[in-house]
Amino acid sequence: MNYKKIEDKIFISIDKGELVNQKLLEVAENEQLNSGWINGLGAISNLEIGYWDIEKKVYVKQKFNNDYELLSLVGNVSLVDNKPFIHTHISFSDTKHNVFGGHLFDAIVIAAAEFCIFTSEYNLHRKLNCGIGLSLWNI
Amino acid sequence: MNYKKIEDKIFISIDKGELVNQKLLEVAENEQLNSGWINGLGAISNLEIGYWDIEKKVYVKQKFNNDYELLSLVGNVSLVDNKPFIHTHISFSDTKHNVFGGHLFDAIVIAAAEFCIFTSEYNLHRKLNCGIGLSLWNI
Amino acid sequence: MNYKKIEDKIFISIDKGELVNQKLLEVAENEQLNSGWINGLGAISNLEIGYWDIEKKVYVKQKFNNDYELLSLVGNVSLVDNKPFIHTHISFSDTKHNVFGGHLFDAIVIAAAEFCIFTSEYNLHRKLNCGIGLSLWNI
Repeated sequence: MNYKKIEDKIFISIDKGELVNQKLLEVAENEQLNSGWINGLGAISNLEIGYWDIEKKVYVKQKFNNDYELLSLVGNVSLVDNKPFIHTHISFSDTKHNVFGGHLFDAIVIAAAEFCIFTSEYNLHRKLNCGIGLSLWNI
Repeated sequence: MNYKKIEDKIFISIDKGELVNQKLLEVAENEQLNSGWINGLGAISNLEIGYWDIEKKVYVKQKFNNDYELLSLVGNVSLVDNKPFIHTHISFSDTKHNVFGGHLFDAIVIAAAEFCIFTSEYNLHRKLNCGIGLSLWNI
Repeated sequence: MNYKKIEDKIFISIDKGELVNQKLLEVAENEQLNSGWINGLGAISNLEIGYWDIEKKVYVKQKFNNDYELLSLVGNVSLVDNKPFIHTHISFSDTKHNVFGGHLFDAIVIAAAEFCIFTSEYNLHRKLNCGIGLSLWNI
């Protein structure tokens, strides 16, 4: 992974074999980000994604092991216990161009993987919402 | 809904039970935005989406009433009759991670819903294009 | 196509009958962009999309000739041989709101098509990666 921060933007290239969210977190930690918006595209495999079960208050996980085009990663950087936290959702397509998606746990890069984090100085903390079961933005 | 404007970015958290587009519009009105780009993710239900029928010049609407992960909201703030107007398209996934999408009329937040508006001072007006039947950006 | 650059953002409206990537490139060339992040939505037809075949190191292409809502265009501007280059992935929906997507070669606008390029002064060059077969960001 290599990245370049210039003003409020960080351009990030994640290498083949590396994990997407792990590397985005590494950037956020290195740059001591307090908040930011993330966008990305690329090609990925070995995905673990999920959806939030509202009733049971758990993520239901599923693996996707083929090769996919990463059509859209939308996410953000916030703070949990004063440390950077990465929250991302993705959509991805198979070789027939059918699209799947969900909350991203992580995925491995298989070719290009290009991201931009739009950073901000705001201290965007998360706080556990017991009714929902998730840590939500505490604005 | 809570939001924080810092420089050119507005971080917005929309609460469970609130309408996505309605609350984005409220932010745009409160902040008297003239233009902006919107990105977001979350979890939603009770969606009304549609597609533009080119021939008939109407939106054909459809409802989706299950719970979905909001994978990507892409949209913008512009001005119609000098008032803020919200235009958004979404993609969302069901519990099997199949993805659906379209032009968003509105949807209700069921868990987290996190958005960023990238604001600008530009007066981005819309003007009715009679050939297409829609109000398009008048740049 | 019309566009307006204001500070680090360029708002772009691409007209009915025009090609998306071709016009985004025209903006990048006119403004002599060195780097930028692209986001967009709209309505398109006559798409040529593809996926990267990792083994054969070629794009496998497919055409989609109906009318679709462009749900999300995610992409970027970089430099290849010191000239602006556009890389975009898209997801789009049919009249049943099923979603398809892939790497975008190009597509024709059929109604609204609204884009924002978030520009930067960084010289974001691409360099051929022989192992992958693609020109990747050379950060």
